[in-house]
Amino acid sequence: MIICTTIVELKAALARQRSKSPNGFVGLVPTMGYLHEGHASLMQRAGSECEFTVVSVFVNPLQFGPNEDFDKYPRDLERDAALAEKNGVALLFVPSVKEMYPTKPLTRVLISEVTDSLCGASRPGHFDGVGTVVSKLFNLVQPDRAYFGMKDAQQVAVVQQMVHDLNMPVDIIPCETVREPDGLAMSSRNVYLEPGQRKQALILSRTLNQAGELLHKPDMTAGKLLDAAKATIQSAPLAIIDYVELLHYPSLQPIEPDRRLAELNDKLILALAVKFGGTRLIDNRLFQTAGGEPHVQNNDEIQAAPSYSN
Amino acid sequence: MIICTTIVELKAALARQRSKSPNGFVGLVPTMGYLHEGHASLMQRAGSECEFTVVSVFVNPLQFGPNEDFDKYPRDLERDAALAEKNGVALLFVPSVKEMYPTKPLTRVLISEVTDSLCGASRPGHFDGVGTVVSKLFNLVQPDRAYFGMKDAQQVAVVQQMVHDLNMPVDIIPCETVREPDGLAMSSRNVYLEPGQRKQALILSRTLNQAGELLHKPDMTAGKLLDAAKATIQSAPLAIIDYVELLHYPSLQPIEPDRRLAELNDKLILALAVKFGGTRLIDNRLFQTAGGEPHVQNNDEIQAAPSYSN
Repeated sequence: MIICTTIVELKAALARQRSKSPNGFVGLVPTMGYLHEGHASLMQRAGSECEFTVVSVFVNPLQFGPNEDFDKYPRDLERDAALAEKNGVALLFVPSVKEMYPTKPLTRVLISEVTDSLCGASRPGHFDGVGTVVSKLFNLVQPDRAYFGMKDAQQVAVVQQMVHDLNMPVDIIPCETVREPDGLAMSSRNVYLEPGQRKQALILSRTLNQAGELLHKPDMTAGKLLDAAKATIQSAPLAIIDYVELLHYPSLQPIEPDRRLAELNDKLILALAVKFGGTRLIDNRLFQTAGGEPHVQNNDEIQAAPSYSN
Repeated sequence: MIICTTIVELKAALARQRSKSPNGFVGLVPTMGYLHEGHASLMQRAGSECEFTVVSVFVNPLQFGPNEDFDKYPRDLERDAALAEKNGVALLFVPSVKEMYPTKPLTRVLISEVTDSLCGASRPGHFDGVGTVVSKLFNLVQPDRAYFGMKDAQQVAVVQQMVHDLNMPVDIIPCETVREPDGLAMSSRNVYLEPGQRKQALILSRTLNQAGELLHKPDMTAGKLLDAAKATIQSAPLAIIDYVELLHYPSLQPIEPDRRLAELNDKLILALAVKFGGTRLIDNRLFQTAGGEPHVQNNDEIQAAPSYSN
């Protein structure tokens, strides 16, 4: 596995690969490092579809708020490199902040509407930083396909909107959330959790599972589903709700509280952000409400999400 | 010459060219049509450096203000196609607004600071539209080089900043302004000018030439140069000044009025925007003040402007 810390090295390695195999797909898995099995699943998917898989490890200051955890965000390049190599990655790109932002960046890629809710609302400026750095990585690597985890479902929706609007020549491949055996969604931030918080963090996946059941009730409305979800989360004494929202997906537009879900024929997302002490966890679940026959969204349907790629 | 009105046709034609000649340069000349000799010079430059030259003709609604001339902007595709073909263009891309913006565009590429002055100040939102559509055209055509006229010097600075910040894989080639025999900078908007206005429009190039002389005066300051330039323009009774500014180039940051130009060792731009009735004309001139020996910027030096390309 090649490890590049500079753009010059990255471009040289990509040029060698492309001259060696002009028609081979290049896959990109953009990450902030501290890699876990969720990232590994993205690498495996990329490896199964692409000839040359690039993983970027870059904790992007542009997408952290002033009071967020940029400085204490966990980093472990040695472990990351070992996990990437074990999962068949061809090139690991690990630029410094100075390499990615050699001068004061004056350009921002801003995506509206789809960023109004969820993390876009509770983390102002976050998706401006995401859109900007993902644009840079796409321009640097020029991948045929880029792989993103559905735990960050809004990020997938935002990146798909950006790719669609700007005609970026890349396919966005959303990949199913990977969970610990007990159901907790994999996240680099799980390492922050103290034992008591870690136990109660299960309330997120439990709430999503419960919602999967409640959806089947013929009289279930958006409002009732959200009330039930909030009550379940609050049953965990250490849980502090940031947001609990039921939205259309991928537009992330709201649903009227009194709307009977059985009447909808659309893809919906139940998205949660819950704090345990200083640690903010997110999780979500997609549902396809098909004219009165709601069922839990499965992975194949996630893959089949419309790709806006050009 | 191939004429494409859809993105599908464009991509197919580019794919054929690239498979035929994998190492041949693709050049892009983005235009709003109603082509003139200024555009022709960009096509000729592209043709001399690239194997396959693409010209886009698209009047981009995103870069026009609500009270600007989007609807009445001159259009003549037949003439444009003839001029492009005559100048060796391989592909003319003429998309509709619906083709470029099939859904409500939610993504904007915003460039700050370099857009604070000149047309960025007098045309709010203009460069947001420019950055966004140029990003789309770069993603669609994926040119090795893109050619822009220096009449729109701020546009060149803005696009170079965007390419630098977002690591876009394209070389920006600024090309010297082409003028009518009497000195008027070529512009599609010149067609709006009535005979009396057309005569007085020469005041722009005359003012720039005069400034080239005044610069040599050892005691000349930014403030004095601007006062002289404004007085000259106002000597044309039909001329209404929009802006007259002397700035550092390409940063487009201001110069203190009392600063003696002979003390500077930098590239400066004198930029003018002047209205004749409803027609707004712009023109500019670059000067290299080299530690007391100011001289008029020539074309070679413009070409040598730092290319931020990756």
